[in-house]
Amino acid sequence: MQLSKIGEFGLINNIRSRCKSSSPDILTGIGDDAAAVKTVRGKGLFTSDIMIEGTHFDLSLITFYQLGWKFLAVNISDILAMGGRPDYFIAGLGIPAACSSGDIDELYTGILDMARTFNVKIIGGDTCLSGHGLILSGTLIGSGKKVITRFTARPGDAIFVTKTLGDSAMGLELLKKGGKKVRGFSGSTPRLELIKRHLMPEPAPIRDTSRITSMIDTSDGLLIDLGHICDESNIGALIYKDKIPVSESLAKEAKKTGEDPLEFALKGGEDYALLFTAPKNIRTRAFRIGEMIEDGRYIIDTAGRKTPFKAEGYEHFKQ
Amino acid sequence: MQLSKIGEFGLINNIRSRCKSSSPDILTGIGDDAAAVKTVRGKGLFTSDIMIEGTHFDLSLITFYQLGWKFLAVNISDILAMGGRPDYFIAGLGIPAACSSGDIDELYTGILDMARTFNVKIIGGDTCLSGHGLILSGTLIGSGKKVITRFTARPGDAIFVTKTLGDSAMGLELLKKGGKKVRGFSGSTPRLELIKRHLMPEPAPIRDTSRITSMIDTSDGLLIDLGHICDESNIGALIYKDKIPVSESLAKEAKKTGEDPLEFALKGGEDYALLFTAPKNIRTRAFRIGEMIEDGRYIIDTAGRKTPFKAEGYEHFKQ
Repeated sequence: MQLSKIGEFGLINNIRSRCKSSSPDILTGIGDDAAAVKTVRGKGLFTSDIMIEGTHFDLSLITFYQLGWKFLAVNISDILAMGGRPDYFIAGLGIPAACSSGDIDELYTGILDMARTFNVKIIGGDTCLSGHGLILSGTLIGSGKKVITRFTARPGDAIFVTKTLGDSAMGLELLKKGGKKVRGFSGSTPRLELIKRHLMPEPAPIRDTSRITSMIDTSDGLLIDLGHICDESNIGALIYKDKIPVSESLAKEAKKTGEDPLEFALKGGEDYALLFTAPKNIRTRAFRIGEMIEDGRYIIDTAGRKTPFKAEGYEHFKQ
Repeated sequence: MQLSKIGEFGLINNIRSRCKSSSPDILTGIGDDAAAVKTVRGKGLFTSDIMIEGTHFDLSLITFYQLGWKFLAVNISDILAMGGRPDYFIAGLGIPAACSSGDIDELYTGILDMARTFNVKIIGGDTCLSGHGLILSGTLIGSGKKVITRFTARPGDAIFVTKTLGDSAMGLELLKKGGKKVRGFSGSTPRLELIKRHLMPEPAPIRDTSRITSMIDTSDGLLIDLGHICDESNIGALIYKDKIPVSESLAKEAKKTGEDPLEFALKGGEDYALLFTAPKNIRTRAFRIGEMIEDGRYIIDTAGRKTPFKAEGYEHFKQ
């Protein structure tokens, strides 16, 4: 159905009925001037992400379901990167006239499926007409006992990452080459696995954060994101090329095209792994890739050669 | 300076240094994955608004300063409409390549001036490139002891509004007729006063909310917004034409063009007055315009004639 038939308030009512939650901590949800929740003494976490058609996604390559999933997943990743638990989501949508109410429904199915995984409740939002393509603007509210920032890494800490890197960037490349949406991921070929990493990232929390000294999620690429920890902590870092975790799927696909998988792993964005620092003797299943040092940023290659690295990857506005 | 020179992280650093706050309740502000604040036992309020160039504003008619002011003001109005106090703001910006860093600086001056009025702290945001004009997406976090919703009005309650209505809609009309930005408001002619009501709304809280039974802010127009209270509270309303507060400025400008000022007051949006219901004998300086009834929605004209009204005004998507 066309949105012009049901109007803004009809759309909000549809969304409200789908997001209804009988949770006793929600005092008012969607449909009032603001959402109200019960707060407890502690630490509140707030993160916000905008996704703009043309800049962040291409509707000819992603389904509304996948987009809804990813929209919430990237926000959840930010809360996990602070050591927090995601609680409430506010979804703002700028919707072009060409969208149908079925498209928005599918988008919400994706949001709600991701929400269920983390027991996140949708408590509000804003919907309006966009003359400029689809705009998603989400705010996720979380909570945490210990808040883990970027500015607290110490020289001597080891550097860990929770997932293989570069998969999402290669997935995007394969998706663009295919030139069309991928709706299902059964059969799980290396190609499909990589595309899935790009379209439907699955954030995963670290259970025991007690000894972690700093953390960030890898959204812009390892070199940039590790650079943020260095900048904010005012120290340096050293990483080992042969320790950077590269998936078999990425290695296979890169071999086909003669590309270097490490280029993807070092500079590719949107993996939404957690990159953290902690004492060397911590017990973790994460990949240990290097250590924090007093000063400078270096990669050591397999021959033991040390090369400085710059924060290369994706940055908005920069030419 | 062009944004391409300073890049995303340069821009974030500029914003961070301007928004720095030494408030002890802010554990981490701009520049981490999420902002963290100390929370206390009580009620947390969350509201989100998107403003899109072309849909919500026209950069040939509003300065970046005024836009920043209004961006935060409309969010503050939502928190006040819940009986809350605004605390923290997260400003998301989708910025077209044509914007300069000076434009964004001016936008932040407007945001910060409005923030100072209410002691709101800017704790985070997201900046990214937009291929589609300027996009502002704000989330405001507030707190309150008593939360006032739309669904708690009772038959017999009187209806009040805190400001004259229709000024903003007439201001927009005058602004469009002028066809250019208005930078200063000194001299305060009726025309300038109305334009200022549109460009730089000044939300104002109600100090004593103890006896208020329901509340909303007038953003879509009186008839629509009162309609929301009726819908949510599942009762009706009766308003008196001659009680609707119309400013002298609106009356003067409407007379010039032969328009009916009441049309502006009933259907014009963006006044950001507070519309509330309360027992008839409440002490307030707000204008009393009618009362809630069991069923139906009516306007009584000066001759005592009763006409049903519909929720007319501005609604996105509807044709």
